[in-house]
Amino acid sequence: MPCIRQIIAGVVIAGALALASAYTAMADELASWNDGPARKNIVDFVTAVTSQGGPDYVEPAARVAVFDNDGTLWGEQPIYVQLAFVLDRVKALAPEHPEWKDTEPFKSVLVGDIAGVAASGEEGLTQLLGATHAGMNSDDFTKIATDWIATAKHPKTGKPYTSMVYQPMLELIDYLKAHDFKVFIVSGGGIEFMRPWTERIYGIPPENVVGSSIKAKYDVNDGKPAIVRLPQIDFIDDGPGKPVGIYDHIGRRPIAAFGNSDGDFQMLEWTTSGAGRTLGLIVHHDDAEREYAYDRKSPFGRLDRGLSEGPKRGWTIVSMKDDWNEIYPQ
Amino acid sequence: MPCIRQIIAGVVIAGALALASAYTAMADELASWNDGPARKNIVDFVTAVTSQGGPDYVEPAARVAVFDNDGTLWGEQPIYVQLAFVLDRVKALAPEHPEWKDTEPFKSVLVGDIAGVAASGEEGLTQLLGATHAGMNSDDFTKIATDWIATAKHPKTGKPYTSMVYQPMLELIDYLKAHDFKVFIVSGGGIEFMRPWTERIYGIPPENVVGSSIKAKYDVNDGKPAIVRLPQIDFIDDGPGKPVGIYDHIGRRPIAAFGNSDGDFQMLEWTTSGAGRTLGLIVHHDDAEREYAYDRKSPFGRLDRGLSEGPKRGWTIVSMKDDWNEIYPQ
Repeated sequence: MPCIRQIIAGVVIAGALALASAYTAMADELASWNDGPARKNIVDFVTAVTSQGGPDYVEPAARVAVFDNDGTLWGEQPIYVQLAFVLDRVKALAPEHPEWKDTEPFKSVLVGDIAGVAASGEEGLTQLLGATHAGMNSDDFTKIATDWIATAKHPKTGKPYTSMVYQPMLELIDYLKAHDFKVFIVSGGGIEFMRPWTERIYGIPPENVVGSSIKAKYDVNDGKPAIVRLPQIDFIDDGPGKPVGIYDHIGRRPIAAFGNSDGDFQMLEWTTSGAGRTLGLIVHHDDAEREYAYDRKSPFGRLDRGLSEGPKRGWTIVSMKDDWNEIYPQ
Repeated sequence: MPCIRQIIAGVVIAGALALASAYTAMADELASWNDGPARKNIVDFVTAVTSQGGPDYVEPAARVAVFDNDGTLWGEQPIYVQLAFVLDRVKALAPEHPEWKDTEPFKSVLVGDIAGVAASGEEGLTQLLGATHAGMNSDDFTKIATDWIATAKHPKTGKPYTSMVYQPMLELIDYLKAHDFKVFIVSGGGIEFMRPWTERIYGIPPENVVGSSIKAKYDVNDGKPAIVRLPQIDFIDDGPGKPVGIYDHIGRRPIAAFGNSDGDFQMLEWTTSGAGRTLGLIVHHDDAEREYAYDRKSPFGRLDRGLSEGPKRGWTIVSMKDDWNEIYPQ
């Protein structure tokens, strides 16, 4: 009998400890988010859709959350990281292409004339993508992207790009995963440019990454099979392309969407017009001191329509300055 | 002190019970597989890649397994299930299209002339797909496919198609999932035709389904957003398309691939030419009595090259007749 009593006491103590630690964990999970409406909206939403028996309950299988990448999970200023990769690759490959010195858009890249690159338009961009992202097999491209991301540095901070991810968003991903959400990246960036590092940096595996892509073909040479990357754009996962990319890759409508620019507008619109409770959230870059301040007029990550219409649509606008007490992982 | 001893005894007994139940579970997991080389190859492979510290160990994140659908997870005779869907839909829609009575390939469909349908070739097929799979929004198509699969019956057995899935393969999916594999369908069939029921029938969620697709666009009408399905083929996930579909959707090379026809050849080739231990497996339909017997000359699910080259490549050839003691779930 004393034995039973001791066991019961032990179970009660263990239970109390577990409960206390669950509360602490919940508080810690979003530690970089200041108390305020943004944090509250997130916690209220997650609590509502995970409360079994509640009116807003969503079963785990349908808890799909989608995150934009550039400007939402990591920085996109002064230029998109992938554009920095393109510029670096053109410079690295230039010795094999003496003709580039006199041919646009390569000429502008080599003399560092970003305006000239921009002036080459979509055709120029396709040429740059073809020269830097295609013509090799999938394993070789993965190695090129992996090697570059391991050594490239941000022009302002001198830090690796993968250390300039947003700590509050990392916490948000973990918080959602801890509540049985399936978390996906849905980015305008190249799908194969992101996949080599998203699992390590964000805890999001390659199969949960949706992005823009070029065409590829299967080829067997001397009995050795390979996926060969072709210089032809296959899919642009931006703006109205994002709901289409979600339909193709995920096959169901998300209940939560996180973005920062007008390229995410349709993804948030599609998500928040679904049945049941949903969450749409936009990160507003208004922190010139700790990061960057930009919105309606920025060439990268322009946020205009979302800033005007978002609040009317019930979307949460996150002020980087006021809502986040940390920007980067320490 | 007696209390401690009782607790220890309890822990030992609980441990022994757990161990015994694990062994029973393992035996039961592949209950419809007869003892033989096919079953042994599967168990040996899974044991090898999940044995921590062993030479063939693969971490859970990389345990990707891909399954063909038609002829591998469910039947494909006398015609592909999705073709039966197309024929039924043409008949259902015919009253709205009086001109179909005199126009191929619809005319042949309406008089039940399968050879005439086949003679209309790829162009005819595209027309049939356009008429039956496109022109509606994604939710409407999901409803059409869901309603059809709930009521359609196999012409020979009179059973719902979803009850004619292969019990041994269901056990194999569960067995792999129990060993922390990520299980995907990679099918030549339409991705949105499969997704409404794969989770319920196979336990494979929509986001783990890769298939052929038509193009789609995002559209907002009167403030109501929709994904509209367009009458244009986007991607054929068959033959050399399968490794490309895997690259696009999963982003890493599988370590196990399961198919039944030459449409799966490249998927098995791509999988089994990866580094480390892999498993390639082909279901050979040689059971005329309990299912169908067909291979090198079948118009649906033709298996010729795989049957000749598979064994030389170390692929496991499953004899439905000899290796399976059950075909369908009881």
